[in-house]
Amino acid sequence: MLTDISEVWDHYRDELNEVEKQLQGSLDSQVPLINTVGQYVLNSGGKRIRPLLLIISSRLCGYRENQHIPLAWIVEFIHTATLLHDDVIDNAEIRRGKRAARTVWGNPVSILVGDYLYSRAVCEAIRFKNSEIHELLSETCRKMTEGEALQLPREGMADFSEELYLKTIEYKTACLLSASCGLGAIICDASAERKGALTQFGRKLGMAFQVADDTLDYVAEKKKLGKVVGKDLREGKVTLPLLHLLQHCPPTDREQIQEMLSRGEATDGELREVLVLMERYGSIGSSLHRAREFIEQAKKELSLFEESTHRRALLIVADYVVNRDH
Amino acid sequence: MLTDISEVWDHYRDELNEVEKQLQGSLDSQVPLINTVGQYVLNSGGKRIRPLLLIISSRLCGYRENQHIPLAWIVEFIHTATLLHDDVIDNAEIRRGKRAARTVWGNPVSILVGDYLYSRAVCEAIRFKNSEIHELLSETCRKMTEGEALQLPREGMADFSEELYLKTIEYKTACLLSASCGLGAIICDASAERKGALTQFGRKLGMAFQVADDTLDYVAEKKKLGKVVGKDLREGKVTLPLLHLLQHCPPTDREQIQEMLSRGEATDGELREVLVLMERYGSIGSSLHRAREFIEQAKKELSLFEESTHRRALLIVADYVVNRDH
Repeated sequence: MLTDISEVWDHYRDELNEVEKQLQGSLDSQVPLINTVGQYVLNSGGKRIRPLLLIISSRLCGYRENQHIPLAWIVEFIHTATLLHDDVIDNAEIRRGKRAARTVWGNPVSILVGDYLYSRAVCEAIRFKNSEIHELLSETCRKMTEGEALQLPREGMADFSEELYLKTIEYKTACLLSASCGLGAIICDASAERKGALTQFGRKLGMAFQVADDTLDYVAEKKKLGKVVGKDLREGKVTLPLLHLLQHCPPTDREQIQEMLSRGEATDGELREVLVLMERYGSIGSSLHRAREFIEQAKKELSLFEESTHRRALLIVADYVVNRDH
Repeated sequence: MLTDISEVWDHYRDELNEVEKQLQGSLDSQVPLINTVGQYVLNSGGKRIRPLLLIISSRLCGYRENQHIPLAWIVEFIHTATLLHDDVIDNAEIRRGKRAARTVWGNPVSILVGDYLYSRAVCEAIRFKNSEIHELLSETCRKMTEGEALQLPREGMADFSEELYLKTIEYKTACLLSASCGLGAIICDASAERKGALTQFGRKLGMAFQVADDTLDYVAEKKKLGKVVGKDLREGKVTLPLLHLLQHCPPTDREQIQEMLSRGEATDGELREVLVLMERYGSIGSSLHRAREFIEQAKKELSLFEESTHRRALLIVADYVVNRDH
């Protein structure tokens, strides 16, 4: 019986290797630079969580063929395309502890390679001649762009609500994780009930994933995630821990934070103050609790399925996405 | 009988108005900023040449329904998406005489709205449940990105060949104009011969269009095209007039131009010298001649069709794309 995440990876190793092989082989542009940059970003330490979810979901629904493999790299291509554009948008220097592609090749190349990976994914998805797959993937991509747009720093950011935050992370992150699980069910023509359960499982897992990620932004050690503490705050992004703090701190602190947000930048001193306040009002603990709640909701969606290795694997992945790097 | 381009626009006015109505109505994002920016770029003086070509092509093949209308705005959305990304890539300040979206809202917004328009177009194209449409559009988008990547300034730009230039403009420009004509034939299930003829007509018209545009870059009056003379040269882009000059000028001049290209920038004085040399060696005239040759080839593709108002309209559009702004 599977007991931890490394056993899960091992259990699906053959299929993941096949995804890897096809993914590398699909960097087949006539423009060498596109392939070079594509290889760089696709081999920069991405864990392939979306392909894994797609594979397990398809197997949970009894899939025995091999069309889940191209679908798995399609979602990874889409994910990678968004990372390339996000890094340009955020002026990111580092991605997963390595230099972001834009710092190596510049913004124009990152934009175009992002466009390429997305259009290449669409070319492959078209091959399926399956409307349900087409609709799910195209709607997902539309929503992901809307989610990114929702989190652009803008005037009135201090009025950012929890409702808007949840919608933003649903669109920018949960959608593609949800689609990954949903596609696994669609590819083997599972019942509407099973498709719905896996889609919801992926959505809630995705919400948990992003809430955990946003919370870790305020606590992660640099060497572990390759990230700087408080990066979101510095970029003027309002996430759940900050929303919690704004709801619970005294008015004078709130006004100071709102002034900082409207300014669109934070000094090291201000960041330290915010971290102290978050500690005082339990904002980190509360946000991590929310992430775990989403995971419990996700797991409940799987009660529809009988106990099996694949169901067990999904439960382990669910716990993993909120507990990684702790 | 139609005699000039203004009569052509008038002849298809009702359908073009319907395209316009659906196009504006399709800026239906839940994120207001996306709709605002989308409206700005879609109403910045684009002539809708691709929708026009699609409409005429479908009518030439006898189409009598109304599914060409959404296809027409899909190609315009795709075209507009590429303009948004191109302006970020080129650091453009001006687009069609108006401030480029990036100078109003910034690069991040321009990147995301480009992504949105593209993904929105894909969502609509999916609705057609027609593999031929799906394949043509997805391959076209992939090639457009490759074309853009091919013209990124890079080391060894001085070795840029005419062959590579022609491939670049085929991918970045001719593909979508070709697809616009091809889709008109596909939507009414025309014969393979007619589809092929319209696809080739659009491709050659597109080649002519871009060669003319690249040549006008060295001669256009600012107020007419809203462009600065020699913009491509300043951006390190090698186009047909410069390739002609490099082939025909003496070695000393050639070396100087190649040095300028490897430097990746040109001063006003250098630009003036290049213009004088182009005048001396007939580079402008030669390039415009090439554009007209492509147009004559394009027109020959239509010999398959009997004389009709729609055939006549396409011939007028063909002449228009190489003679505009002269």
